[in-house]
Amino acid sequence: MNIVITGGAGFLGARLARALLARGTFSLRGAPARPIQQIVLADLGPAPADLAADPRVRSVQGDLLSLVESRDVPAAGTDAVFHLAAAVSGECEADFDLGMRSNVDTTRALLQACRAQGSTPVFVFASSVGVFGRRPGDGPLGTIADDTLPTPQGSYGIQKFICEQLVADYSRKGFVAGRTVRPMTVAVRPGRPNGAASSFFSGMIREPLKGERARVPVPADTPAALASPTSTIEGFLRAAEASDEQWGHRTAVNLPSLRTTVGEMAQALEKVAGKEATALLDWSPDPAIEKLVRSWPGDVAWERARGLGLKADPDFESIVRAYIAENADAVRLKVR
Amino acid sequence: MNIVITGGAGFLGARLARALLARGTFSLRGAPARPIQQIVLADLGPAPADLAADPRVRSVQGDLLSLVESRDVPAAGTDAVFHLAAAVSGECEADFDLGMRSNVDTTRALLQACRAQGSTPVFVFASSVGVFGRRPGDGPLGTIADDTLPTPQGSYGIQKFICEQLVADYSRKGFVAGRTVRPMTVAVRPGRPNGAASSFFSGMIREPLKGERARVPVPADTPAALASPTSTIEGFLRAAEASDEQWGHRTAVNLPSLRTTVGEMAQALEKVAGKEATALLDWSPDPAIEKLVRSWPGDVAWERARGLGLKADPDFESIVRAYIAENADAVRLKVR
Repeated sequence: MNIVITGGAGFLGARLARALLARGTFSLRGAPARPIQQIVLADLGPAPADLAADPRVRSVQGDLLSLVESRDVPAAGTDAVFHLAAAVSGECEADFDLGMRSNVDTTRALLQACRAQGSTPVFVFASSVGVFGRRPGDGPLGTIADDTLPTPQGSYGIQKFICEQLVADYSRKGFVAGRTVRPMTVAVRPGRPNGAASSFFSGMIREPLKGERARVPVPADTPAALASPTSTIEGFLRAAEASDEQWGHRTAVNLPSLRTTVGEMAQALEKVAGKEATALLDWSPDPAIEKLVRSWPGDVAWERARGLGLKADPDFESIVRAYIAENADAVRLKVR
Repeated sequence: MNIVITGGAGFLGARLARALLARGTFSLRGAPARPIQQIVLADLGPAPADLAADPRVRSVQGDLLSLVESRDVPAAGTDAVFHLAAAVSGECEADFDLGMRSNVDTTRALLQACRAQGSTPVFVFASSVGVFGRRPGDGPLGTIADDTLPTPQGSYGIQKFICEQLVADYSRKGFVAGRTVRPMTVAVRPGRPNGAASSFFSGMIREPLKGERARVPVPADTPAALASPTSTIEGFLRAAEASDEQWGHRTAVNLPSLRTTVGEMAQALEKVAGKEATALLDWSPDPAIEKLVRSWPGDVAWERARGLGLKADPDFESIVRAYIAENADAVRLKVR
């Protein structure tokens, strides 16, 4: 089996590759599992060293649209594509044309290339809860279900929602076997703050554990719909594995979410790493960030994902402990 | 004021042009009315003679995407675009790439050209109730509201829904003042049957009035959401006239619909033209057409259109009588 992961050198892409390589075999659309021969990681950046060292991994670097147009990606005989690469929301809002190219044009070119294979490859598309947004004058978003009407309030959300439509129709035509999932905000991400408005969801845990101060730019009662990296990767894998019948509608599936608040996240941090940790949090609201974050869905239902056997993280404490277990080097405080 | 109508030589486009020329002045986005200096009719075919003879009309013939790419359309200083041109559903289903080009790529190029004007022209986009469709395994469509989740079951509907998203985001960015409307099935259309599955909605009235036989390929209880040509044109005009505040959300507005059934349509025909007319109907169900037609919305609510002051046709009889008044040449039966 040959698999392509776009954004394959990124945090989630690399984790997905490691999960697949660890399994060794994989099942697509309910068919019997087969050995994984090759995973192509397509990304602007180089693949992490551990992945580059695996003989089953091929790293292809460059702008994805160019790679697709030059037919470097996907290789002939590709059985499944996990399409995670995208320009992020801030970029899309700052540069409209860049977002249209990186998200819409690239996804369409990739779908066309899959169609040209003639073998209906599985196409797992990572959409976003960014497709949901509160229209001016609308009340609070309320509970977002799989079938809630998306009304994106940013170019990123519009572009993701357009791609959801493309994946649905390419699937209906039999060009690909599309699986559109909407991941939740992923926390805790390792590494450094990335400037995204959502960056603090990880930073408020990661930096204090490192013994560094972190700003929390929203009040404690701010709701959040989160998922751990592990839970998110499980969602991607299950989407590819599910039979067409299990998958059901061609419309998008919300991945499982833990519904929590920023205050509960801080409490979990304190439980795991004590008051030394929470003393490093600077609760200093930024009205612009608060407004943006409160416009995001904080209450996301995931009925179809449950039907696929997926589960949400049980609580935020377990997410913090998993982060610590995987990132011992980046933890300076004493964990209890 | 300079106006562009794409599909401007077609039945609805030409009617829209005539309505605008008859007014002489027009108001955009709640601003005071201004004289109409020029209406550009962009179409594959030539403009009807009456329009071509009007000094305010310029007819531009050709493939719309090519016309936009060569900058023939829109001309500099365009204040409003009515974008009605599209590949129809049968074409889009038979030739996927043609549909993507004619509908998605052309609309996007036209939006880009409007953006390049730098003056935020009004952009009335004729979407379609074809964005609604019953997913396999779903129950009946039920009542379709402005905010019902579209789940298109054909490439045409997907393409129209993608364009709805583009118009919304180009509007949010201030590139155009977008007004997306979803017209109902338009009846009674003059002329000849056009091979579309919906063609019989007009044919079952038009042909008998001509003294010719017409097949009705669905049972009498088949629901239909219809609008007369006049009502449809009113919707296009009102969309351009409404102020931003009156218009409200950037999402699409369902135009007014008369909710009727095929049986009631036949009764109206009989009331107007007697049993001689209905004796010319061949009630001979075609399971394929019936399945398709029943997958279309038959019950469409139009709350936002009502808020704009628009009205549905009062009954089908009035639609038949209006058709007869406008197409006396094509009526051979005696009307009572």
